[in-house]
Amino acid sequence: MIIDLRSDTVTKPTVNMLEAMLNADVGDDVYKEDNSVNALESKLAEMFGMDEALFFPSGSMANQAALKLHTNPGEQVICDKYAHIYNYEGGGASFNSGISCKLVDGHRGMFTAAQAEASINPPDFYHSPLTSLIAVENTTNKGGGACWDFEQLKELRTVAHNHKLGYHLDGARLWNALAETNKTPKQYGELFDTISVCLSKGLGCPMGSVLIGKKELMQNAIRVRKILGGGMRQVGFMAAAGIYALDHHVHRLKEDHKRAKEIGEVLNSLSIIQKVEPIETNIIIFELDGSINEQDFFDRLKAKNIHIIGMGNNKLRMVTHLDYNDSMHEFLLKSLKAM
Amino acid sequence: MIIDLRSDTVTKPTVNMLEAMLNADVGDDVYKEDNSVNALESKLAEMFGMDEALFFPSGSMANQAALKLHTNPGEQVICDKYAHIYNYEGGGASFNSGISCKLVDGHRGMFTAAQAEASINPPDFYHSPLTSLIAVENTTNKGGGACWDFEQLKELRTVAHNHKLGYHLDGARLWNALAETNKTPKQYGELFDTISVCLSKGLGCPMGSVLIGKKELMQNAIRVRKILGGGMRQVGFMAAAGIYALDHHVHRLKEDHKRAKEIGEVLNSLSIIQKVEPIETNIIIFELDGSINEQDFFDRLKAKNIHIIGMGNNKLRMVTHLDYNDSMHEFLLKSLKAM
Amino acid sequence: MIIDLRSDTVTKPTVNMLEAMLNADVGDDVYKEDNSVNALESKLAEMFGMDEALFFPSGSMANQAALKLHTNPGEQVICDKYAHIYNYEGGGASFNSGISCKLVDGHRGMFTAAQAEASINPPDFYHSPLTSLIAVENTTNKGGGACWDFEQLKELRTVAHNHKLGYHLDGARLWNALAETNKTPKQYGELFDTISVCLSKGLGCPMGSVLIGKKELMQNAIRVRKILGGGMRQVGFMAAAGIYALDHHVHRLKEDHKRAKEIGEVLNSLSIIQKVEPIETNIIIFELDGSINEQDFFDRLKAKNIHIIGMGNNKLRMVTHLDYNDSMHEFLLKSLKAM
Amino acid sequence: MIIDLRSDTVTKPTVNMLEAMLNADVGDDVYKEDNSVNALESKLAEMFGMDEALFFPSGSMANQAALKLHTNPGEQVICDKYAHIYNYEGGGASFNSGISCKLVDGHRGMFTAAQAEASINPPDFYHSPLTSLIAVENTTNKGGGACWDFEQLKELRTVAHNHKLGYHLDGARLWNALAETNKTPKQYGELFDTISVCLSKGLGCPMGSVLIGKKELMQNAIRVRKILGGGMRQVGFMAAAGIYALDHHVHRLKEDHKRAKEIGEVLNSLSIIQKVEPIETNIIIFELDGSINEQDFFDRLKAKNIHIIGMGNNKLRMVTHLDYNDSMHEFLLKSLKAM
Repeated sequence: MIIDLRSDTVTKPTVNMLEAMLNADVGDDVYKEDNSVNALESKLAEMFGMDEALFFPSGSMANQAALKLHTNPGEQVICDKYAHIYNYEGGGASFNSGISCKLVDGHRGMFTAAQAEASINPPDFYHSPLTSLIAVENTTNKGGGACWDFEQLKELRTVAHNHKLGYHLDGARLWNALAETNKTPKQYGELFDTISVCLSKGLGCPMGSVLIGKKELMQNAIRVRKILGGGMRQVGFMAAAGIYALDHHVHRLKEDHKRAKEIGEVLNSLSIIQKVEPIETNIIIFELDGSINEQDFFDRLKAKNIHIIGMGNNKLRMVTHLDYNDSMHEFLLKSLKAM
Repeated sequence: MIIDLRSDTVTKPTVNMLEAMLNADVGDDVYKEDNSVNALESKLAEMFGMDEALFFPSGSMANQAALKLHTNPGEQVICDKYAHIYNYEGGGASFNSGISCKLVDGHRGMFTAAQAEASINPPDFYHSPLTSLIAVENTTNKGGGACWDFEQLKELRTVAHNHKLGYHLDGARLWNALAETNKTPKQYGELFDTISVCLSKGLGCPMGSVLIGKKELMQNAIRVRKILGGGMRQVGFMAAAGIYALDHHVHRLKEDHKRAKEIGEVLNSLSIIQKVEPIETNIIIFELDGSINEQDFFDRLKAKNIHIIGMGNNKLRMVTHLDYNDSMHEFLLKSLKAM
Repeated sequence: MIIDLRSDTVTKPTVNMLEAMLNADVGDDVYKEDNSVNALESKLAEMFGMDEALFFPSGSMANQAALKLHTNPGEQVICDKYAHIYNYEGGGASFNSGISCKLVDGHRGMFTAAQAEASINPPDFYHSPLTSLIAVENTTNKGGGACWDFEQLKELRTVAHNHKLGYHLDGARLWNALAETNKTPKQYGELFDTISVCLSKGLGCPMGSVLIGKKELMQNAIRVRKILGGGMRQVGFMAAAGIYALDHHVHRLKEDHKRAKEIGEVLNSLSIIQKVEPIETNIIIFELDGSINEQDFFDRLKAKNIHIIGMGNNKLRMVTHLDYNDSMHEFLLKSLKAM
Repeated sequence: MIIDLRSDTVTKPTVNMLEAMLNADVGDDVYKEDNSVNALESKLAEMFGMDEALFFPSGSMANQAALKLHTNPGEQVICDKYAHIYNYEGGGASFNSGISCKLVDGHRGMFTAAQAEASINPPDFYHSPLTSLIAVENTTNKGGGACWDFEQLKELRTVAHNHKLGYHLDGARLWNALAETNKTPKQYGELFDTISVCLSKGLGCPMGSVLIGKKELMQNAIRVRKILGGGMRQVGFMAAAGIYALDHHVHRLKEDHKRAKEIGEVLNSLSIIQKVEPIETNIIIFELDGSINEQDFFDRLKAKNIHIIGMGNNKLRMVTHLDYNDSMHEFLLKSLKAM
């Protein structure tokens, strides 16, 4: 039994999902003739009450395309210093769109409307980059799976609106936030201009993300996807997994959250752990105290076939997911307690 | 019975390929832990006798990544005026890599060593872009599936070598060229620094291309793929189709070529056809004479469930492929003769 | 006596121009407080009947900024294969703006409306770059100082208008075209969206070009200039030279043209010259026959302190200008006849 | 009498500098034949003990070119959150070079070797941008003219060296730092790979900056300058001002510093001023207390023909310079005391 808690991206399709994939009705999606892709896109556009949706090979590309759709080279996007688009997309914001990030010094990856407003450069002061977008991430990955307060997101919407800025949501783990906060996709669709959602993290699909948004922005999305090399052919096999997951894997996310919190409780009880960040969803971030070094800790877990990951700056991360089940959970808790 | 000859990208997996996909051993390819992807990459690197290979969601991305690996912004790539990288990748060479194309006025998408040499800007004349790459396409798409003479490719290798330029092959339909010319992948691997090959055209896979190349170039390929958004998770389902196709679908390509030539003969016999370009592989490009307009021609075929595509400048294209079989062929030939 | 005919950029300020520079009323142009720069910009905007003008350190930057103002990354500009923006701006179109050039195979750097129209990619065919701009150069440098027919430029305006494309004029040597064709700046101002004019070629200033254009485009010009690093401080010393030149050096350009034609006649009479291209303004482009190689020809002239320049492809160039006077002209003609 | 303390860029040439400009020996610098430019470049290269120097129209372009010479698109430069390259170059780092800034939370624009080291992304973790450069600014503009401790710069050199990163100095006001700290240009030349110095701030020239550096980096500088549009013709008039300033205006900078400190003392004594940042060179940054708003403060000074500038976040700035003399100083101090 291997327990892989490095990320919720490591899941493999269930038998039922695999069957849905096998039976997918596919076509050439570059010509927009793949029925499964089209069905997935329609399903998500409708779910969020937005105009259009487009399938992408990865969440990074969905985010990168969104940044491009909202900005021109030289401009600036306001985001948290923890943002995935700044930290974990390979420098793509600058590479693909020629833009820079105005980093907000937020709390667990989240920031206030006042902080955003103070980060806007005066539009006619041409020495500074022109601010054109606010981007938030929900839940926050580097922030430990924290969920934004919906009122705070609304206030940011007002800031964006008042200053004619775009408003993008990196919803790689939005499903987790929805499960935890009892908000609906439509409520998010009303706030944002574009939203990326991931199929391969909590939902357990092999690959793929979808960008959902307003028509005036999305009409160029397929061109941007083509330029970045994201146009695929009979990719409906993957889209079919997405449809299955939306129907069957959303509601179970609370299980992941429950297990994550239980892991957190055990970690908190260990003397070698200095700090466990608050756990709201399926991510557990914690720091070791000085008595054990990171590599030793990894190795001890690895000896028990338990795999976790480092986040830099002495932080470690575990993520619960679809392929992490009760017996693994029991074994993990026992193993942690014994450390 | 629908006969779709618009492109060889429209094929759907065979039952056996689908079974290979279903049984694929997958993992998280972003961590390079997908056994099927790894096996496909190793298989192709070995087949071409090159150092490394990397899976991409599309041929456009494989080519775009190659351009990036060979160049710096502002530089110039020598290619034919028909080149796919110039005409059909959405302007990606400039968008992704900031480079321009020095267009050679070749023959059916192919050019000579002398033409390439004359296209090199003097390296110390800083007013002109610095030339850094020669890129060829085999077979040529816009050139009607023409196959390069291997000696000509060797001469270009010498030009590239003498001027310290990179040498890239867009091998979207290299399998067709190999089938027709009795050359081996290894012979190509010896000539080029990087080669992209497509799994979803002649080979009939749902999606994917692979970039194969020398270590010193390929070591940055995974970073470039990440930046462009091409990092996928359990994509081994698609790689497994690729392995199956390499084992089972390469040798049958000559059938496609034979049928293409037979279609060409019929077209040549029709009074409404002004010109059929020489047919070497699976692409048929032809021009109507003035007695019938393009749309009417399309519509008449469409009425018989036959679909072909326009190439601009009054040229039409048909492409034979895995999903085009004997009964379709018989019906098509009969239908054409009746026009 | 050194006779430098390599380019009309080699001129030095006259005594009177130098005095105008010395007495310039300057300020910090980054704050738009340099009276001389402001006066030059106003003078040119008014002269062309256009909304706004902005001073740039070079013609390349004025053109590059114009390309940026008209386009987004990935898009395509239609221009002649001889265009300065494609050949002699270091690959800047791709580097600075991420765009590509759709090259028209024109005549002496000029092309027809029909050629332009055939070069436009269908806007909804997202495989090809989106066409967004037509750029012409008048006179054409690589085309040997040829002047566009004004009616042809008007027809191109119609194409641009019908397809919602921008229309830019690289007017590095527009003054020469105006002098030769009896058209006015205002007539050009009515046709184009943006026009760059050079102060340092025929006009004899030390440096500087000005971009003139419509308000909706020019409002971002100062921001683009800042990003490229073209914001200068008390640069009014150079602008003052420009004002002086506009008042005193425009009308004399016909002298340069007359001398150029006389040089052409002599070249035409020489047996070692294979071909002299038609001479319309101040540029003479010619080819040697096989009896003498380029370097020998250069050296023989250099021995007489006469300097000319190569254009590649066995073409040589001479350019007449403000610092090329009667006695030099006499000496040159005599020297050429003696070759 | 107008007292302009908005920036040290507002200075106009002295009579003697103007004479030096008038008598400049110039040529076409695009062909590298401008003797004054060449002399300036040689003088600076020698002064810093570095291989090569190149003249640029602005400090922004000199910095932007340096960033390009050190990096490839997608990479990351470590700099302080106050850095000019991040805040005041129009987003050029991303626009021109496709790179992002890893912002260090330093003190007055300066940071430690440990902070730099912690900012380096692991080179093989391809999710994060590849770190390739450390850039510092001395004195720091937004940091209030603070001078780096030379030992700290040396330690950063070690970090750069150990991690194979480039090391660039934005020396827009390096002359002020040199004057204050008794270090020599050669000592800086030994530390850095590239250094930009400005001629138009403390030194009082109309325009221009020079990038100085190691040969292996500088060999592409002229190509990058061309691409950005910074190649100018008879710009020796401006270079001559630079030579004059290096000979006559460096030693007097301590006067500016002395006056700045005296202004600071008076500001510190005013009840309406909440805080004056430590003054080390010629920049004074201060904050008002709540009893007077920024605009009122500006207006009161403006009524006395005194001009200062806002820095955002309630900070105001004054900068002393060559055109700020004793009688202005007396009047300013008196005026401030009376507020």
